[in-house]
Amino acid sequence: MDERDIRQLLEQVKAGRLSTAQALERLKHLPFEDLGFAKIDHHRALRQGYAEVILGRGKTPAQVAEIVRGMLRPKGSRHNLLITRADRRIFAAVRRITRAARFHPLSGAITIQRNKTIAGKGTILVVSAGTSDIPIAEEALVAAQAMGNRAEALYDVGVAGLHRLMEYREKLAAARVIVCVAGMEGALPSVIAGMVGVPVIAVPTSTGYGASFGGVAALLGMLNSCASNVSVVNIDNGFGAGCVASVINRL
Amino acid sequence: MDERDIRQLLEQVKAGRLSTAQALERLKHLPFEDLGFAKIDHHRALRQGYAEVILGRGKTPAQVAEIVRGMLRPKGSRHNLLITRADRRIFAAVRRITRAARFHPLSGAITIQRNKTIAGKGTILVVSAGTSDIPIAEEALVAAQAMGNRAEALYDVGVAGLHRLMEYREKLAAARVIVCVAGMEGALPSVIAGMVGVPVIAVPTSTGYGASFGGVAALLGMLNSCASNVSVVNIDNGFGAGCVASVINRL
Amino acid sequence: MDERDIRQLLEQVKAGRLSTAQALERLKHLPFEDLGFAKIDHHRALRQGYAEVILGRGKTPAQVAEIVRGMLRPKGSRHNLLITRADRRIFAAVRRITRAARFHPLSGAITIQRNKTIAGKGTILVVSAGTSDIPIAEEALVAAQAMGNRAEALYDVGVAGLHRLMEYREKLAAARVIVCVAGMEGALPSVIAGMVGVPVIAVPTSTGYGASFGGVAALLGMLNSCASNVSVVNIDNGFGAGCVASVINRL
Amino acid sequence: MDERDIRQLLEQVKAGRLSTAQALERLKHLPFEDLGFAKIDHHRALRQGYAEVILGRGKTPAQVAEIVRGMLRPKGSRHNLLITRADRRIFAAVRRITRAARFHPLSGAITIQRNKTIAGKGTILVVSAGTSDIPIAEEALVAAQAMGNRAEALYDVGVAGLHRLMEYREKLAAARVIVCVAGMEGALPSVIAGMVGVPVIAVPTSTGYGASFGGVAALLGMLNSCASNVSVVNIDNGFGAGCVASVINRL
Amino acid sequence: MDERDIRQLLEQVKAGRLSTAQALERLKHLPFEDLGFAKIDHHRALRQGYAEVILGRGKTPAQVAEIVRGMLRPKGSRHNLLITRADRRIFAAVRRITRAARFHPLSGAITIQRNKTIAGKGTILVVSAGTSDIPIAEEALVAAQAMGNRAEALYDVGVAGLHRLMEYREKLAAARVIVCVAGMEGALPSVIAGMVGVPVIAVPTSTGYGASFGGVAALLGMLNSCASNVSVVNIDNGFGAGCVASVINRL
Amino acid sequence: MDERDIRQLLEQVKAGRLSTAQALERLKHLPFEDLGFAKIDHHRALRQGYAEVILGRGKTPAQVAEIVRGMLRPKGSRHNLLITRADRRIFAAVRRITRAARFHPLSGAITIQRNKTIAGKGTILVVSAGTSDIPIAEEALVAAQAMGNRAEALYDVGVAGLHRLMEYREKLAAARVIVCVAGMEGALPSVIAGMVGVPVIAVPTSTGYGASFGGVAALLGMLNSCASNVSVVNIDNGFGAGCVASVINRL
Amino acid sequence: MDERDIRQLLEQVKAGRLSTAQALERLKHLPFEDLGFAKIDHHRALRQGYAEVILGRGKTPAQVAEIVRGMLRPKGSRHNLLITRADRRIFAAVRRITRAARFHPLSGAITIQRNKTIAGKGTILVVSAGTSDIPIAEEALVAAQAMGNRAEALYDVGVAGLHRLMEYREKLAAARVIVCVAGMEGALPSVIAGMVGVPVIAVPTSTGYGASFGGVAALLGMLNSCASNVSVVNIDNGFGAGCVASVINRL
Amino acid sequence: MDERDIRQLLEQVKAGRLSTAQALERLKHLPFEDLGFAKIDHHRALRQGYAEVILGRGKTPAQVAEIVRGMLRPKGSRHNLLITRADRRIFAAVRRITRAARFHPLSGAITIQRNKTIAGKGTILVVSAGTSDIPIAEEALVAAQAMGNRAEALYDVGVAGLHRLMEYREKLAAARVIVCVAGMEGALPSVIAGMVGVPVIAVPTSTGYGASFGGVAALLGMLNSCASNVSVVNIDNGFGAGCVASVINRL
Repeated sequence: MDERDIRQLLEQVKAGRLSTAQALERLKHLPFEDLGFAKIDHHRALRQGYAEVILGRGKTPAQVAEIVRGMLRPKGSRHNLLITRADRRIFAAVRRITRAARFHPLSGAITIQRNKTIAGKGTILVVSAGTSDIPIAEEALVAAQAMGNRAEALYDVGVAGLHRLMEYREKLAAARVIVCVAGMEGALPSVIAGMVGVPVIAVPTSTGYGASFGGVAALLGMLNSCASNVSVVNIDNGFGAGCVASVINRL
Repeated sequence: MDERDIRQLLEQVKAGRLSTAQALERLKHLPFEDLGFAKIDHHRALRQGYAEVILGRGKTPAQVAEIVRGMLRPKGSRHNLLITRADRRIFAAVRRITRAARFHPLSGAITIQRNKTIAGKGTILVVSAGTSDIPIAEEALVAAQAMGNRAEALYDVGVAGLHRLMEYREKLAAARVIVCVAGMEGALPSVIAGMVGVPVIAVPTSTGYGASFGGVAALLGMLNSCASNVSVVNIDNGFGAGCVASVINRL
Repeated sequence: MDERDIRQLLEQVKAGRLSTAQALERLKHLPFEDLGFAKIDHHRALRQGYAEVILGRGKTPAQVAEIVRGMLRPKGSRHNLLITRADRRIFAAVRRITRAARFHPLSGAITIQRNKTIAGKGTILVVSAGTSDIPIAEEALVAAQAMGNRAEALYDVGVAGLHRLMEYREKLAAARVIVCVAGMEGALPSVIAGMVGVPVIAVPTSTGYGASFGGVAALLGMLNSCASNVSVVNIDNGFGAGCVASVINRL
Repeated sequence: MDERDIRQLLEQVKAGRLSTAQALERLKHLPFEDLGFAKIDHHRALRQGYAEVILGRGKTPAQVAEIVRGMLRPKGSRHNLLITRADRRIFAAVRRITRAARFHPLSGAITIQRNKTIAGKGTILVVSAGTSDIPIAEEALVAAQAMGNRAEALYDVGVAGLHRLMEYREKLAAARVIVCVAGMEGALPSVIAGMVGVPVIAVPTSTGYGASFGGVAALLGMLNSCASNVSVVNIDNGFGAGCVASVINRL
Repeated sequence: MDERDIRQLLEQVKAGRLSTAQALERLKHLPFEDLGFAKIDHHRALRQGYAEVILGRGKTPAQVAEIVRGMLRPKGSRHNLLITRADRRIFAAVRRITRAARFHPLSGAITIQRNKTIAGKGTILVVSAGTSDIPIAEEALVAAQAMGNRAEALYDVGVAGLHRLMEYREKLAAARVIVCVAGMEGALPSVIAGMVGVPVIAVPTSTGYGASFGGVAALLGMLNSCASNVSVVNIDNGFGAGCVASVINRL
Repeated sequence: MDERDIRQLLEQVKAGRLSTAQALERLKHLPFEDLGFAKIDHHRALRQGYAEVILGRGKTPAQVAEIVRGMLRPKGSRHNLLITRADRRIFAAVRRITRAARFHPLSGAITIQRNKTIAGKGTILVVSAGTSDIPIAEEALVAAQAMGNRAEALYDVGVAGLHRLMEYREKLAAARVIVCVAGMEGALPSVIAGMVGVPVIAVPTSTGYGASFGGVAALLGMLNSCASNVSVVNIDNGFGAGCVASVINRL
Repeated sequence: MDERDIRQLLEQVKAGRLSTAQALERLKHLPFEDLGFAKIDHHRALRQGYAEVILGRGKTPAQVAEIVRGMLRPKGSRHNLLITRADRRIFAAVRRITRAARFHPLSGAITIQRNKTIAGKGTILVVSAGTSDIPIAEEALVAAQAMGNRAEALYDVGVAGLHRLMEYREKLAAARVIVCVAGMEGALPSVIAGMVGVPVIAVPTSTGYGASFGGVAALLGMLNSCASNVSVVNIDNGFGAGCVASVINRL
Repeated sequence: MDERDIRQLLEQVKAGRLSTAQALERLKHLPFEDLGFAKIDHHRALRQGYAEVILGRGKTPAQVAEIVRGMLRPKGSRHNLLITRADRRIFAAVRRITRAARFHPLSGAITIQRNKTIAGKGTILVVSAGTSDIPIAEEALVAAQAMGNRAEALYDVGVAGLHRLMEYREKLAAARVIVCVAGMEGALPSVIAGMVGVPVIAVPTSTGYGASFGGVAALLGMLNSCASNVSVVNIDNGFGAGCVASVINRL
């Protein structure tokens, strides 16, 4: 039931074709999302540039392919599609559906880009502390791009060699939102956030061993950041960081 | 050593009053922040609208008053001042320095507003799940306002009574950034983030008892949010959430 | 806006006093809980026998008294009132509002009983393992009673002296719902659940020291119960256990 | 030794065929459960509708088959049999014992239904937040059905898309007991419990990654639920939730 | 109902003064502990030399005094009494009941010794690593003595100064059971257990700070002891260690 | 340097063949264990009945076989040998060294019994709560037997079916030391310890799932036991429990 | 028994006043530390420049004064004395013993300097991230100085304002050992260690709130440092860091 | 831009070929590490004897070989190369690049020694508590040697058999730095640190099971060491301990 349906209902009441009691009953049980909520939801998705997202992990290639086929069916739809944590077997299956599919081996993501509009106002910079953080960083990068943002990468600039980081001060200064991916002690977001005036989205990674406790050390480090423009997402949640950055960049 | 100093040095070299070797030596040990880094830092603070902030907890009223006096000294400075986690005794001491000081009893914050410019582009909405979360929510609210933002509050709309929340859909829809403060299970940010298309900054609080573990339950809930426009700050870090929201809102 | 309001609106449309567009606009923004949701909520509260509940901890006697006065105001209301985690000073303030207030010193609860109807179908038995668990057990007992249940207590029947427990087999067998309160190793719910065929609500308590970790040992013990008719509430949540037991007992 | 045996003993004493001392000795060492305890236990199992349950994990197909054969042996027994966490190899072995065995691929459960009596008074509704929670939800569903309950499923209604949940308000309202299965932030039980007046059994799942800590985040969220008709079972304990729900539903 | 009662019952049946059915009914509901279980329990307590124990913490001086008076009442009873975690105010109250009470200021224990029989076969040696572990060590010492054991103390022989410990090799070799109390890294039990051939009961203490986590570091160290004659009790449970040592020493 | 060496040294001094200074120097640097310490150590091992123990896990069959060959070499040695956490491949290799080797499939232990003397004074009873605890229980059983004790097993007597446990009261009462193995809530040691007057060594197992956290729930339950004759060893440390029980039983 | 005693013994043997057997017996039971071990220990303490240390916390002023008096008694002793975690009341009591006592209000330490020799070869630099870390940093500083080292402080150079730190590159480069004290995310040691080639001793502090978990976040950050010249001491263990730095600096 | 470049720039200014403004601009954007920072960094690496290090884990043999080829390319470079956590397949690939590669099977490290200069002033002694700690101990040993130190090993001297350790007192006394590797209770560093006057670097290992929690028990034990010359690195971080020891030993 959408706006038009409600209009019809009200006109039926006006015309006497529907009693007050009948209309009351129908309105009472009206799924409120049919009053526009679902649509607004839908519009919101479009407005945010949220790509349609499929979590590849735990699904068979056939299952993913079937979902992709369903998503591509509606005519006129121009959403980008993003499949996270996939692999080459899933990619092969998706490729049979559409030649537009592209595999990103560093992150295991698959994208089907149907809309190249850049909706984000600035550049999202994805920074990683070490080389082992790159898969998560790439997931953030691909997600941000799939949602209509210019996004760039800057990898392996950890805090124990500050001069590497310092060399990129201008690149950091040029970003509108920064996603900062780090494992181990998770100190990079604090250092970067102290150098810039934009929001820094920190992503702890589960790299490391021993007392890194699968990313907990980095997570706690980031939550306790002494910089006040840092917020944090879940361990290894590169996708989520890319989404948050995109939502901010499209404001 | 600032830009003018370097110009002078170069002119001394040109004029032959300083040998190449001497100039090299001085440039080599030049604190690089004197090349503008510190200044840029200062400008950044101004640009972000960061109020000067003093953490009141653990300081005597006399100490806080002394710091405030120092901050007010520079002529022409128009920063707002924010003292977090203070109390009435600190307020009394600060009030003797300046009549502009205002105490916010709900959060224990003190503000000295010298600059009423609204620099944030939209409204920051601070939402709390329960009444016991209000001190932290107020801290976020006061911080956001002190940094030049329009900020509004919406309290006691926890997820176990969704109808209360639903009533404020328009208020939620009108915000440019949302700070969402919740203790216990910390579910409110997920629910709200699903209703809007803007960034949601989640603040877990240490309210609750038993298996809330001083806010850990809420923190974990927020980090695992099934909504993808949520990022998180430290437990009870209302101030930090206000800062992050302000940085986003001023983009 | 309640049912009557919607009826009026529809009649205004019918009578032509309100245009279809105007009605549509009003219905669109209609807080859906005003379509009956809030009322249903209210009715549900009544149906469940939920007493109105005030958490006393952290409130001044004056604040509690004011809330009580507000709750007693609506004519015809017959809800029982329950104030948890209160003390004698709060009780004195509440007593000045109504002579019906009664203080329960073991749990620190205050009840104002206005409705003595027994709505629960059977008896709720509240069992505690040790004497130090009694405050939490009493909170469950008082809550269950305030919500219209027959509730009885059986204290100090810990598992290291099974014969004490065995003596009460019939009492256990007679209960329709059992609330089982235990600290330390939290083993009592497993033992009792193996002796009966009714739901056992387990409440871990924060009594104990060292590796009890404030009730975590008991909580984990209960969650890992080898009996399959046990479910668990938060550490020290006697009130919650009483509520769950009441909801079950009124089915 | 059962009631009849004791009667015989007493009659032997009466008849002088057994001396007082001999009878005393036999009664003293009488396994007390033979005085009726074991029988009551047995009767209780029947009364609760507890299916005979075998944990399949960690057993070979041959072992499970042997146990099933033993359970089916007693004449007149009409218990349903439930094998949890099994697989197709175990199913093949069980199928050779009885054609009545049925495999439930979503949960890995096997049921042998010999008694179709519906003993539960209402409907048990099993709700899941996400698709990855379905195996645990199905385990609860199958367990509830095997114990003689009408049970229905409602999947993928997580809190970040409330409109999906709202559409099923009537289904929720019609249930007598609700099992609510969720991973990640575990917020769904709080939201649902606020919408209904019946007991909600919350089951955290180990789905998720990073700071979900194998279901701990969801577990803590559920234990800290702000709704007071929620109780909790162990992580991934769909079977336990089905049992608790069945015990309640048969009251 | 004790053995004599059952004999009477059987004789009444024999004599026809009690019908078989009546006797059956009475035997069925016979609290099984009355068949001797409670008595055996009582005898066991005597046999183990368990002193009657009162936990002083959380009780008022009047309450403790009342319990002591009750325990002293039965004629002929010769149990020792032990009150743990008491203070001088409780001692004053107990002293008014009996002049035999003695206060142990190091551990806060009170003993009322009525039976000086040494029931333990050897010496229990209580060893502590540091001076701050002495209160817990003394609790173990006093408990062991109150239960009829020769017990000696050896304090401040931590592992970072092995020569101190080595000087007491003979004392260690002479003990039949060793209680070993240590905080911080909890290494002393491993070292001592490697030097002797008798059971070592390890007691972690909550002394220390930072990453000692209230005794968890010591507890884990002891549980992971590389010596195989070490078993462990709860953090700060000097009383429990004394009991375990006494039970072993009386074998 | 052993006793004979020291005697020779002293005689050389007496005979004037060694100066006082030379002797002093040699004695000063004398490895003190050569003064008898190592030997005493060796004697202690014999006295305790410690079998020579090899941890099989992580060693190749060839490595284990080589160690066994070395241990069997000394003439006259009559130690039993125990290899824990081995498998059939290791057993095959050991069997080639000695036909006396015996494999215990339930625990994965291998024993080589060369000394059948029973040195323990009573019976060690190994009790397990569930069937999945049996491998750990068997390890305790085999270890206790290899160290010269009579040891018996009593399995699957968990606390949710007390009548099973009650049936074995006499068996429990007859033991001199009890090893109690349990996973899940770890409640069995408390229940058993309340029924007997002998030391109970509690072994938590890592069976279970979810909030059992690999045996932590059982471990905490046991450390918090409300019975005072319980001490605890590491999770899954059946071997250690067997050793502790043996040391006690040989006192 | 010291070196002289052994010499006498050997001379008695030589002189025939002691039989070989008697001497053997005495040497066998010779506390090995009397063979020089204790003395070496004593010498080691002197050599390391370990000041005699008293932990003030938990001791009365009278107790501390008594220990100080004992330590000052031996003639010729020139150790410095260090009392950690003391207060002004303890200081007053110590001052009555010796006018040489000096109170350090920032750390609560008291020093009695009797030996001003600088034994450390270079400078120990104590760096702190924030102002709230200063008490712990001062404890390290005072300890290092009391043990005969040149030690300097550099405070409030946290990683969110790198330019502050960069300004002190030369000071950092000049140190032989660096103690680095930080709370919150504990990132400073990694950054500093990347700038220098000397050992960095990292001290996490318990400052902070929420997910700093009393210093655990900083501790984990430091343990996971991506720099390889960092080692760590316990949370708030400024004293220990000063000791480790001193031991290194005196090499 | 290096020193020579700056000299040229200054001479161009002097010669008037570059205006002051142009030079200012170039100097302003001068990557500060080009002012010598990177070079100093490079020199520091040489001075510390840091070998070039590659983490083998997670890299393919081809990848490692490629990096090694790159590192060997610069003429005149004499760095040693260290590849940690490698295996025989990686070794085969590296061996094809250079015959100088050597595989260390105990630790899985590969070294390419090009510089045999001993830069460390004393001996680094690597001690392990048990045989299962040897892989980590070997990693420390190989790293220390690759960085130009004399390093020796002393394995299997755990605290439950002190006499083994005592026999090596002189070896311990001769070391300039000690790396102490231990799992389980992690007590060895405390014991050793009490016997020597040099820095002890403690390395917890993840050996053990149950409540060792992957090395957490050992880590906590070491952080809480009662000896004050102990500092700690991450669990299993043999490489880091070797680095820290080398940095100290080269002072």
